[in-house]
Amino acid sequence: MRNGDHSTRLHKLLPKQVNIVEVGARDGLQNEKMVPLDVKVALIDKLSQTGLCYIETGAFVSPKRIPQMADSAEVFEAINRKPNITYSALTPNLRGLEDAIQAGADEVAVFTSASETFSQNNIHCSINESLKRFEPVIALAASENIKVRGYLSCVADCPYEGPTQPAQVASIAKAMSDLGCYQVSLGDTIGTGTPLRIARMIESVSHLLPAHNLAVHFHDTYGQALANIFQALQMGINTIDSSVAGLGGCPYAPGASGNVATEDVLYLCEGLGINTGVNLEEVVRTAHYIAKILGKAPNSKVARSQTPS
Amino acid sequence: MRNGDHSTRLHKLLPKQVNIVEVGARDGLQNEKMVPLDVKVALIDKLSQTGLCYIETGAFVSPKRIPQMADSAEVFEAINRKPNITYSALTPNLRGLEDAIQAGADEVAVFTSASETFSQNNIHCSINESLKRFEPVIALAASENIKVRGYLSCVADCPYEGPTQPAQVASIAKAMSDLGCYQVSLGDTIGTGTPLRIARMIESVSHLLPAHNLAVHFHDTYGQALANIFQALQMGINTIDSSVAGLGGCPYAPGASGNVATEDVLYLCEGLGINTGVNLEEVVRTAHYIAKILGKAPNSKVARSQTPS
Repeated sequence: MRNGDHSTRLHKLLPKQVNIVEVGARDGLQNEKMVPLDVKVALIDKLSQTGLCYIETGAFVSPKRIPQMADSAEVFEAINRKPNITYSALTPNLRGLEDAIQAGADEVAVFTSASETFSQNNIHCSINESLKRFEPVIALAASENIKVRGYLSCVADCPYEGPTQPAQVASIAKAMSDLGCYQVSLGDTIGTGTPLRIARMIESVSHLLPAHNLAVHFHDTYGQALANIFQALQMGINTIDSSVAGLGGCPYAPGASGNVATEDVLYLCEGLGINTGVNLEEVVRTAHYIAKILGKAPNSKVARSQTPS
Repeated sequence: MRNGDHSTRLHKLLPKQVNIVEVGARDGLQNEKMVPLDVKVALIDKLSQTGLCYIETGAFVSPKRIPQMADSAEVFEAINRKPNITYSALTPNLRGLEDAIQAGADEVAVFTSASETFSQNNIHCSINESLKRFEPVIALAASENIKVRGYLSCVADCPYEGPTQPAQVASIAKAMSDLGCYQVSLGDTIGTGTPLRIARMIESVSHLLPAHNLAVHFHDTYGQALANIFQALQMGINTIDSSVAGLGGCPYAPGASGNVATEDVLYLCEGLGINTGVNLEEVVRTAHYIAKILGKAPNSKVARSQTPS
């Protein structure tokens, strides 16, 4: 290929518009030290002013296992909701879903893993058992007109098993879709993926599911997330999960980065000419707000490059 | 394009082998607080044990302007040189080159900018004047059988002028090559480049110079460096400048990251199946060594993910 063709081809492959799923207040804060209710509410209210259209707001999970999310009902109650924003909740089971409905969640998410050992260690059942548990959750959600999103973890590697086979990722993503998940978010949980392996994984999944039913959820533990997102964007993926200030560590590598930072993703998209509808400056300001409360610098190169005003 | 073709095409485009130009001890330390001679020597000696084949070792510049590099002759004198490694020096002028020859530098580098205003502010002359100054430097280097590398800054944006035109980058890179630089290192000095703009810039330069005569020198100020490198690798570039521990800040954004970290580049290359000949673990260990002396964490996600042993 002549080099003259690269940028033209690239420009054609990239989407015009990308949806950002902001997971900082849930997936992020669930892996940070406890913050008080009013901080969570302030964080979500600030995020609601940035142009973000999808904000993961809480999780209805065991407060013993995840005390950081114990006040999710109060969070849903106290936030200042904007009508064009989807405020979602993680719901591992029927009881969680009932609580989420009670709290007024707009959407819910279920989760499983592409790795059998990770599933056993993380949610204490096999992958197949976890899929079985989705059935009543999705049925009740459907009866309430609540859309269900699916998280699939370990799509590149598992901390226990090593590399995950792309065909395995594809097969479980397809099963989640068949059960009723309108979108499957492909999670590189430990951030070890690099773009060629990510491309092979997305290709494998794309044989069974259309790219517009997929999202990517990449952790930046080894700094590879933006390169991986850049590759995914060229393959028809146009929904990106990210976390303001890069909230959320990595339980398998203490001190390491967690979710890719929303600010860094927005900077990439803006540079690529992709519309996100989100105001980067406002997200940077929100990143500094929450990082200050957590007593650390934002885990985002974009936010660190800008002194808070 | 069917998604099934992406990874095959990508695999074909990527090089099998990449050369890392380690700039931490010069471009890095020049933008950090002063470290003593013995630390510089220990740093370079540790880098010499990692498999790196090219180590920028010092600069023969005005000690008033850049006091961090004032002891470069002593550094060259004290390091434990390995025969297969190129130890290079930055030499802005004939006097610098004479000092570099005296010190025994294997190669030298000259530098200019693709931005007229940056050139005026940074090296106090026009771009054309800076090119004129290369002539006697390159002539003397040639007579001593010393190869000359060229640095070209502001290839994406200038902190004073904004976006740099790709054609301008191409024209100056070509002039540097015509004057005798065997390789031109394309520097995104303020780290604002994103992959589509970088692709257009490399395309423009590739019309005038073969990709194997180019290197990329990307700063990670906004977290975009690896995505940009990933794009450059697909366009025939196989020399990457990087800095252990991400040494070197950004004078235009205090607190921000500087050079892309060698560790992060190595992790990307390993994941892409590209041989670098460099031992990542050893580089991570070296990153923790120098970061500790500088009293901060390594500016590298890979190094931060790993507790020093």
